[in-house]
Amino acid sequence: MSANQPAVRQDVTDYMHGLGQAAREAGRHLAATESGPRNAALSAIARRLRADETALREANEADLAAGREQGLDAALLDRLALTEARIEAMATGLEQIAALPDPVGAVSHLDPMPSGIRVGRMRVPLGVVGIIYESRPNVTADAAGLCLKSGNACILRGGSESLRSNRAIAACIAEGLAEAGLPETAVQVVETTDRAAVGALITMDEHVDVLVPRGGKGLIERIMQDATVPMIKHLDGVCHCFVDAGADADMAERIVVNAKTQRYGTCNTLETLLLDAAIAPSLLPRLKSAFDAHGVELRGCERSRALVDGLTPAEPADWDAEYLAPILAVRVVDGIDAAMAHIERHSSGHTEAIVTRDHARAQRFLREVDSSSVMVNASTRFADGFEYGLGAEIGISTDKLHARGPVGLEGLTTQKYIVLGEGHIRE
Amino acid sequence: MSANQPAVRQDVTDYMHGLGQAAREAGRHLAATESGPRNAALSAIARRLRADETALREANEADLAAGREQGLDAALLDRLALTEARIEAMATGLEQIAALPDPVGAVSHLDPMPSGIRVGRMRVPLGVVGIIYESRPNVTADAAGLCLKSGNACILRGGSESLRSNRAIAACIAEGLAEAGLPETAVQVVETTDRAAVGALITMDEHVDVLVPRGGKGLIERIMQDATVPMIKHLDGVCHCFVDAGADADMAERIVVNAKTQRYGTCNTLETLLLDAAIAPSLLPRLKSAFDAHGVELRGCERSRALVDGLTPAEPADWDAEYLAPILAVRVVDGIDAAMAHIERHSSGHTEAIVTRDHARAQRFLREVDSSSVMVNASTRFADGFEYGLGAEIGISTDKLHARGPVGLEGLTTQKYIVLGEGHIRE
Repeated sequence: MSANQPAVRQDVTDYMHGLGQAAREAGRHLAATESGPRNAALSAIARRLRADETALREANEADLAAGREQGLDAALLDRLALTEARIEAMATGLEQIAALPDPVGAVSHLDPMPSGIRVGRMRVPLGVVGIIYESRPNVTADAAGLCLKSGNACILRGGSESLRSNRAIAACIAEGLAEAGLPETAVQVVETTDRAAVGALITMDEHVDVLVPRGGKGLIERIMQDATVPMIKHLDGVCHCFVDAGADADMAERIVVNAKTQRYGTCNTLETLLLDAAIAPSLLPRLKSAFDAHGVELRGCERSRALVDGLTPAEPADWDAEYLAPILAVRVVDGIDAAMAHIERHSSGHTEAIVTRDHARAQRFLREVDSSSVMVNASTRFADGFEYGLGAEIGISTDKLHARGPVGLEGLTTQKYIVLGEGHIRE
Repeated sequence: MSANQPAVRQDVTDYMHGLGQAAREAGRHLAATESGPRNAALSAIARRLRADETALREANEADLAAGREQGLDAALLDRLALTEARIEAMATGLEQIAALPDPVGAVSHLDPMPSGIRVGRMRVPLGVVGIIYESRPNVTADAAGLCLKSGNACILRGGSESLRSNRAIAACIAEGLAEAGLPETAVQVVETTDRAAVGALITMDEHVDVLVPRGGKGLIERIMQDATVPMIKHLDGVCHCFVDAGADADMAERIVVNAKTQRYGTCNTLETLLLDAAIAPSLLPRLKSAFDAHGVELRGCERSRALVDGLTPAEPADWDAEYLAPILAVRVVDGIDAAMAHIERHSSGHTEAIVTRDHARAQRFLREVDSSSVMVNASTRFADGFEYGLGAEIGISTDKLHARGPVGLEGLTTQKYIVLGEGHIRE
């Protein structure tokens, strides 16, 4: 594999186009395979990962040592680390993907038309998927598994600090593919840390059908600027919960506290709480106590600060902040229209929830809020491919075209029309 | 309306952003309306078009006179003309759209999850659609009708030669919208012929959710170069038909002749015929006679020219040509694999057909050919939203993401996730 590594920078584009051509070829092959070999490969890769644990950890130790030398912070080193448990989780994850239903080849209906032809839609792979991610080597196995299951070839470009680990994982993947009789080029890890490789990957429209960037907002914004290949992505999750007048106070507290505190760093974490003016005076004091117990700082609008002491004054920037931290913006609003107007203006289109007892307002919120997930009486933390029963998640999309919300295997496929005739012609 | 017309070029971008903001606002309003007012508006617009026939034809006469002065060719003038029949067709088309089922608001399943939440998907409008088209004023009514039905606001930018006609149609649309109590800004015609307007429209990501260019390859290529807003589009239709060994010769002739000659100028017209070497010697002579009767020129590969006289030698460029004319490229191939390899290399991904008696090869062709429509024993001319039972067609997509193949009302919508809980939180 290292024989493919480009020696000089000007070769990077050629190198990437070589990967692209090989991926296109492998993708055609995969699209024509049945479930059997694809699932066999997934199981074989899982076995290889377990069997090669020592080699994987050695490669990872070298990455970690280099990372420590470079002065990577503790959080980055933690994400870079391949522990025994993480290697087992990668293997188990692949086996779980193997057990999912095959998304490819299904024909949804086949309807007779007045002309006599029958028209249906067949689900098929997209072709080639480009995955760009940070230095989290476990993503290499997860992403490869999802692409393989959905019949797509993939090109994986992980963070440069994890290259040795990714190579070791790629070696297991290549062995597993070979064992199942599939082309090793079905999964290719980019063998250079040159940033020009990303530039080439995101503009090779002829070789790559979709990009899935996985990482922070900064990474995705950089890719968005230059990418010509379409992307499945979300930039951030500025998620809202609106507590309606007359809501059950116990339920409201339970949902709001869970949505904020169950995990701080995830994109479906609550960032702004909107309280109807009719419920705020009774509800806000008890929410303040509950959040105090969790060490969550509340940043409130003037009206909320008039109701309870100890809130930090909210600045305009707070209404657009994705804190990913124990901080919550709080605003008192006059009814559902004001709440939806605030959401319309400040939401990132990820996930919004209402806590209400009122049927009509629940229905309005569901219909009118234009986000990828809209919830009634549930925690925003449920916005997740596994919680939605997709069985897997390649990412979350806040765009409206193609995939919206949590994206599972179906988002890595498309549907083509099929037409069956018996000599039919158009009159 | 002409009060909005920008006086100088540097105002064009501001003007377009003004349309965009108004469209965004109107789109929100439309998304919250039920079917009733949207259908009422469609019927009211149809009535206005019929009632204002004289005014429409006067405006159109002025466009035609200016066009003749500019020296537009006969084909362009024909497409520009609003005859009595075309006005009636616009009105009837709107009434047909009104009669279609509402694509908006449907919730497809609502499944209970292990956590207790119920998860479903609700179909919702995309928001704002930008339509860019040539000087065919009837597209103004058709496109506006499809967007309105699907709950989207739209911004319409037709060819400059048709501006007077489009304004007159837009006046009918505005009156129909007002009659139904919907915002007139739900449908806006761009009131300037400045090309900078297109540049602004295709890059206003914040105001426009999707572009639908309708026109020739040149128009679409120009838009593709600069657009940042996603597009529903196809560049061209280099459609293939492969006649398999052992195919029914009568059926093959019927399909191939229909696919080529039923209309020459459409994107689903047959452009390249692939004949299995086993059937070519018996089939090609009779196809030659049939095409001679239609005045179709055959451009053949060496092997086909060895079988029958009178074929023009095919040049390499013929395998990639979308003739849109009475010309057909003919190539003899060795079996289905060679046919599919040719298609893979030369197809534009629009529509391909196989004529065969063999079940296994029919299934392989359906599965492995990567085009938006794949057909067995039917004419490529069936690739059409109406023939597929979509009830309407905004365009055809050869892209793989979002919509693929003929695009009806569903392609102007998206699905968001909805979650119903009863106080559920994530453990």
